[in-house]
Amino acid sequence: MRIAIDAMGGDHAPGACVEGALAAAAEYPDTVIVLVGDTARLEPLLQGRRPANLELRHASEVIEADDEPVKAVRRKKDSSMVVAGRMVKEGEVGAMISAGNTGALMTTGLLVVGRMKGIERPALAPMLPTLDGEGVLALDLGANMDATAQQLVQYAIMGSIYRMKVHGMKKPRVGLLNVGTEAMKGNEVTKAAFPLLETAPVDFVGNVESRDVLQKPCDVLVCDGFAGNIMLKSMEGTASAVFSVLKAEFTRTWYTKLAAALVKNGLGRFRSKMDYTEHGAAPLLGLEGLVLKSHGSSNATAFKNAVRQARTALSNDLVRSISVEISKGSEWESP
Amino acid sequence: MRIAIDAMGGDHAPGACVEGALAAAAEYPDTVIVLVGDTARLEPLLQGRRPANLELRHASEVIEADDEPVKAVRRKKDSSMVVAGRMVKEGEVGAMISAGNTGALMTTGLLVVGRMKGIERPALAPMLPTLDGEGVLALDLGANMDATAQQLVQYAIMGSIYRMKVHGMKKPRVGLLNVGTEAMKGNEVTKAAFPLLETAPVDFVGNVESRDVLQKPCDVLVCDGFAGNIMLKSMEGTASAVFSVLKAEFTRTWYTKLAAALVKNGLGRFRSKMDYTEHGAAPLLGLEGLVLKSHGSSNATAFKNAVRQARTALSNDLVRSISVEISKGSEWESP
Repeated sequence: MRIAIDAMGGDHAPGACVEGALAAAAEYPDTVIVLVGDTARLEPLLQGRRPANLELRHASEVIEADDEPVKAVRRKKDSSMVVAGRMVKEGEVGAMISAGNTGALMTTGLLVVGRMKGIERPALAPMLPTLDGEGVLALDLGANMDATAQQLVQYAIMGSIYRMKVHGMKKPRVGLLNVGTEAMKGNEVTKAAFPLLETAPVDFVGNVESRDVLQKPCDVLVCDGFAGNIMLKSMEGTASAVFSVLKAEFTRTWYTKLAAALVKNGLGRFRSKMDYTEHGAAPLLGLEGLVLKSHGSSNATAFKNAVRQARTALSNDLVRSISVEISKGSEWESP
Repeated sequence: MRIAIDAMGGDHAPGACVEGALAAAAEYPDTVIVLVGDTARLEPLLQGRRPANLELRHASEVIEADDEPVKAVRRKKDSSMVVAGRMVKEGEVGAMISAGNTGALMTTGLLVVGRMKGIERPALAPMLPTLDGEGVLALDLGANMDATAQQLVQYAIMGSIYRMKVHGMKKPRVGLLNVGTEAMKGNEVTKAAFPLLETAPVDFVGNVESRDVLQKPCDVLVCDGFAGNIMLKSMEGTASAVFSVLKAEFTRTWYTKLAAALVKNGLGRFRSKMDYTEHGAAPLLGLEGLVLKSHGSSNATAFKNAVRQARTALSNDLVRSISVEISKGSEWESP
């Protein structure tokens, strides 16, 4: 099994990528890690450490965080991200991991790795935090702003298979992000998606309101990229506002500082539970190969964990399983 | 000036409506309050208190919280809500206030009071909480799930005029709820709305991300009802989850209980700031008359405050001001 890491992507690249690759190579001797990037920068970071299952692949360019995605992918053909995408496309590796520019990675997925036959739109599927710490796989969270009802059904199928194959769930519950729980609630798209989801090959549990997501009302949450982004950023903004107010409150006087000390551990546990960057890399589902998006702030451990995720997905034949289910299509597609 | 209160709507009806009407009648002697509802139930609650500027209007039916809105408004023609709407339509009162079934009130607005000429869709415009306690007027929050770019522009104009006429603002800043701040971000509708808003007669400050709403990045936030609902309920759900975790944390041991006691006041202040039900009634904008939706849990003070809001709107000629601006239309409408 071979997995490529875009060594130039992310806030802590290339250092964190190199250390993560080394850690993964040590932990998974059956897996070859290919670090893709500027070898002149990578070599010194290895400091002579060269395990047999770690390879370097030179790529002369870098896609920056503020590059315009489509333009960058088209022009920087020798960038670490595009080279890694090409390796997936050509079967040289089974999967690629990048913590770089999200838009560029989605474009690399579409233009370099390629869309899976039968899939209208690939989807980005991160785990959202839930109060029990287990999380909900939400898709799409950013690959496509608009979605049709049929595309939402494809998201449901892809998300379900991911949770079965990668998280070992038997029967993931699928919810549709909506403004009320009744069947006829919602906008034109969700109203059209509801009956399609009822007959799709997933365990559809109905509409889910955004206020209930933290209670884990489902295992897979289906939404268009626009609504998903609004939800995620509202949650982030509110949690961060509450914590900043707490902080202000706790530092006001000596006795509130004492109070802070008394509950520090509990709040810290909660805050890290709420941090969706701790839930691993987000797969880009619906491509001809496996692409994982690590959070921009990924450290070495995050990269190592992403390798573990990729290994699980590869051993359980995630991409082919999705393809098989999608090719059955007609049963759940609208007439 | 005459203002009708639907005396049978809301969790605490008719008691809170009656007490609120009495308080408003006492505070605003120049205003006649008309309590609309089952007089057999209202009379005893008045306990003989009958100020000269308080009238009763009998209505034999009640629209319940779980009634199907359109059906209820069509069939219950003698319900307190529909009768109050008819009084607005016929000019017998300048405004109506109801804490009843939101869907039914919006239907009453459309079918009984009537849509303003030139307005495609009326919008519900509550205040969202912000950290400084001042709030953002957000619309639409629930009247229409889908909106076109042109409708979003109408929301922007109506919201701006409301903040000028009712809140006395000179130049309310209008933001478009979106997934990023750059002009070309968003779904098809927000991308089409952006350039229209730039030429509309409002102070458009650009796209606003949902995570920033609590920081009051604008005074009027424009969105479709679906996205607005997802945002509002995500904020509610997250705040309530954080507070429930805080509560659990604070009650864990004797010393965390001590901590809770030390910061109780500060957290209470914050929580009430975050409570959007404390921000008054939400106007239904774009109708031929003034309709205010009070929160379902409104108490007497909330009803009295809604009367004050209605008075300000009436004295400043809110509805006609919106109508004048909308009738200029062509300048900002897309070709």
